[in-house]
Amino acid sequence: MALHTLAVLVDNSPGVLARVAGLFSRRAFNIDSLAVGPTENPEISRMTIVVNVEGHVLEQVIRQLDKLINVIHIAEMKPATSTSAELLMVKVKNSAEAKSLAEKFDAKVVDESDDSITIEATGSPEKLSELLGSLKKIGIKELVQSGLVALERGATALSERTLEIQSVSTDTQADYQN
Amino acid sequence: MALHTLAVLVDNSPGVLARVAGLFSRRAFNIDSLAVGPTENPEISRMTIVVNVEGHVLEQVIRQLDKLINVIHIAEMKPATSTSAELLMVKVKNSAEAKSLAEKFDAKVVDESDDSITIEATGSPEKLSELLGSLKKIGIKELVQSGLVALERGATALSERTLEIQSVSTDTQADYQN
Repeated sequence: MALHTLAVLVDNSPGVLARVAGLFSRRAFNIDSLAVGPTENPEISRMTIVVNVEGHVLEQVIRQLDKLINVIHIAEMKPATSTSAELLMVKVKNSAEAKSLAEKFDAKVVDESDDSITIEATGSPEKLSELLGSLKKIGIKELVQSGLVALERGATALSERTLEIQSVSTDTQADYQN
Repeated sequence: MALHTLAVLVDNSPGVLARVAGLFSRRAFNIDSLAVGPTENPEISRMTIVVNVEGHVLEQVIRQLDKLINVIHIAEMKPATSTSAELLMVKVKNSAEAKSLAEKFDAKVVDESDDSITIEATGSPEKLSELLGSLKKIGIKELVQSGLVALERGATALSERTLEIQSVSTDTQADYQN
C-alpha cells in the first residue's frame, strides 16, 4: 500500500460529500485524511483526499469517483509535480523545551496556560511527524490536523485539465515499484 | 444562519465518515468546511466541521452526531475559548504585487513559474479572505483550502470533557443574537 493524494472538484451541493464518503466506505478504501473547502468559485468545492491503496486500485478509485453525480474533475497530485502541506495544532505540557521545538520547526505558540501551550505548525507530513515525534517525549495532550492540501506546480489549473486515468495508472505502478 | 465549529472525535474506521456525511446530507445541514485527520491515538481520528445553521438547529446536529456509531465525543469550539486556523494554497498570475501581498500576509511563495506563483498562507478565515480579496484583483487561477481546525484554549483536552448540550445551546442563542 502507498499514500496517494487526489484533488477532486465537486459541485457545492449537500449530498456530494456523502456520496464520496459512501463510495470509499463501501469499497473499504482507506482514507488517511480528507479536507473539503470552498474554492474561488462559490458553486464549486475542492476536496483533497489522501488514500492508502495499492497502485492498481487507485485507477478504480478514480474511475468510480468520476462516475459520481456532482463530481466535476479529479487528478492525482503527484509529489514531483505538486506542492502540498498540512496544518497541525497540538497542545503539550508547558515547558521551555516545547517552546524551543516550536521555534526550531518555524511554528507559532497560539495559546499558553500554566500547564499547557498550543503550537500551530505548517509543512509536509514528514516535517510535522518529526515535530510530533519530538513533542511526544514532552507529553502531547491533544492535537488536530487539517489533512493534506495540494496544488499542481506550474500555471495550469486542475479545471483546465482532462482526466488522464491511463497516465495516472502507469505512473503509479512505477512509483509503487520504487 | 451562523457558522459554528464542531470538533468530533471518531473511531478510525472506514464507515464513520460516510455516516457523518450521510447525516448532514439527509438533514440538509450545510457544511462550510470539513477536515479529517489522525490524532495522537492511532485508533481515533478528529473531524473539524464548520456548519452554517441557526443556533437552535446546532443542538439537533450535536444530539444526532452523538447517536452515531463510532462517534466518541463532540464539542463546539467557540471563538472566545478556542484557537483556530486554516491553510490556504492559491495560484495567481506571477507579479511583483502578488509577491508583496504574500509578504504582507506573512505567507510563503511555494512555487513559481513564468506565468504563475503559488502562495501558501495560514490564519483565521477573516485574514485569508482579506488576502483572497486582494489577490482577486491580480487574477486567481485556482485555490485549495484545508477547512478550519480548532483546539480549545487552556490545558483540558476534548476527550476529558463530557457532552454539554445545554450550555452549547444557550451560548449559541446568545451568539446568534449578537
